[in-house]
Amino acid sequence: MTWYNDTGKESSTVLSTRIRFARNLADYPFGSRLSAEKANEIIEKLAPTFENIGFKKIDFTKISKLEALSYLEKHYVSREFTEKKTPHALMLNEPCGYAVMLCEEDHIRMQCILPGLALDEAYASICKLDDTLDSSFEIAYNEELGYLTHCPTNLGTGMRASVMMFLPALTMGGQINGLSNQLSKIGLTMRGFYGEGSSAQGAIYQISNQITLGITEEDSIKKLQDIVKQITEQETELRKLITSEKNPELIDRISRAEGILRHAFMISSSEFISAFSDVRLGIDLGIIRSIDLKTLGELFIEVMPATLSLSAENPPKTQKERDILRAERIKSRL
Amino acid sequence: MTWYNDTGKESSTVLSTRIRFARNLADYPFGSRLSAEKANEIIEKLAPTFENIGFKKIDFTKISKLEALSYLEKHYVSREFTEKKTPHALMLNEPCGYAVMLCEEDHIRMQCILPGLALDEAYASICKLDDTLDSSFEIAYNEELGYLTHCPTNLGTGMRASVMMFLPALTMGGQINGLSNQLSKIGLTMRGFYGEGSSAQGAIYQISNQITLGITEEDSIKKLQDIVKQITEQETELRKLITSEKNPELIDRISRAEGILRHAFMISSSEFISAFSDVRLGIDLGIIRSIDLKTLGELFIEVMPATLSLSAENPPKTQKERDILRAERIKSRL
Repeated sequence: MTWYNDTGKESSTVLSTRIRFARNLADYPFGSRLSAEKANEIIEKLAPTFENIGFKKIDFTKISKLEALSYLEKHYVSREFTEKKTPHALMLNEPCGYAVMLCEEDHIRMQCILPGLALDEAYASICKLDDTLDSSFEIAYNEELGYLTHCPTNLGTGMRASVMMFLPALTMGGQINGLSNQLSKIGLTMRGFYGEGSSAQGAIYQISNQITLGITEEDSIKKLQDIVKQITEQETELRKLITSEKNPELIDRISRAEGILRHAFMISSSEFISAFSDVRLGIDLGIIRSIDLKTLGELFIEVMPATLSLSAENPPKTQKERDILRAERIKSRL
Repeated sequence: MTWYNDTGKESSTVLSTRIRFARNLADYPFGSRLSAEKANEIIEKLAPTFENIGFKKIDFTKISKLEALSYLEKHYVSREFTEKKTPHALMLNEPCGYAVMLCEEDHIRMQCILPGLALDEAYASICKLDDTLDSSFEIAYNEELGYLTHCPTNLGTGMRASVMMFLPALTMGGQINGLSNQLSKIGLTMRGFYGEGSSAQGAIYQISNQITLGITEEDSIKKLQDIVKQITEQETELRKLITSEKNPELIDRISRAEGILRHAFMISSSEFISAFSDVRLGIDLGIIRSIDLKTLGELFIEVMPATLSLSAENPPKTQKERDILRAERIKSRL
């Protein structure tokens, strides 16, 4: 099971939950002051601890760009990580939802991603991993500042908790900007699917905590949990309203989106995401019955550009070829 | 069997063939000079002759506008006929392809419509009907001018032969205007699906003879037949070219058209015609295998606005309701 191969709690509005801890070793320089030699040393020092508990190591200096991008598409690494030139490695334990970047901006960026709304579970899980780390290495920590990180915005808990939400009704209702402003006032941010700087496609939004200093991890998570529940209620209410109005235009849009997925001969990534979003809403509203959320969710990652290309026997050479392959894959999976 | 419930010869480029004769009774005034009383007299005089050979009489002054329009959609009557206030009736023998308008512009407008390219068959058929008429009534005829008609453009043979062609490749290739100009130079005209003044939708064109004076019926038909064969060759060549180029955009357009027909929740008449056209081409090119020409051809008339509304248990009250009904009908038929 991985976050994208299953559905979890609140699956009609929540795709996945992610908690990440930023950690650094006490006796190594931070960030760009870390030499390639020292970075390698860190990786070699840390990797066995993870390997002992079921992780596999992916040396990012040795894999293809396509492979690296596929990990990005799965949310296991950051874009910066895929572009880094100095030594860096990913420690991966997919069944547990663990993905640990070694020598990204911080020495250790460990995260747990689970399907659906699972803040408590992800938090418990990542804490367990953190304990293992803590018992084996000396982690940079300051009594006043908490965990020391490369970027001051992560000082303190070093934690970012985020929930990937699916909010088509609020999007249609034009309520996203207002919601985003409200969230920023209470220290939360709303971003597109691929985090900072990415635009929201397919009514998918990441909501995460912004503040790491002067707040406990538990409070931070509780706050996020409460907000996600509130947003879920708003979204659910609005969806009921949409359905009770017997909106033929909406039913038509959703039905045609299914038609596109089932029939198109070529389909771009962004058209897929838009159709995905309409079909996902259609499943929730009971308009589409022949596709289930799980299959659709798996498809979502499977047909992302790099992941799709990697999985092909004859990798597509042009965007057009990839769009044709994407349409084939979608049709055969549905 | 009716022209729209079957396919005939050259079905990949020819939908139907129609031949119509304009005739008038010698001892009655023509056109607007015909009183309502006299029009009734003509109808009562002529109807039994047709009824004796399997026709049914439809009194157009007694049917609903919707019913009248449905006959127009099936090409059995002209638009003028549906709008006429004075007595007029349709004599119909669908299995033989016969539709005779009594008291349209001429006293008698008899036509035979058959599926596919069937000029000889339609001509033989309409001649047989003409003979029956000739032996029972005195028809207005002049040794020099031939058959006398209300409009001088029909004088002579009183015949119009027309072939409904499906020319998507020539349309895509931008060759229709040139073709239309060439045809007009040799006394043929090219029109949209619903004849004079109608625009061509879905790459469907009516090609018909224009000249009725100083030419025999046989020569007129032979000329049309030759031209239709030439156009068919051009269209077929061009379709081969399109396919040999492995045109993914075309395959995509055709596949998506099938998706629209199979999935849309509401669909307008013009969107249907456009999707119909793409799917029809897709069947011919072997891209679509799960729909046959016959079913598609039947649908074409079935989902026309008036015919569709007439066939509904609860006739749609708004255009939106009709578009929803159309989509339902299409889905259940495919």
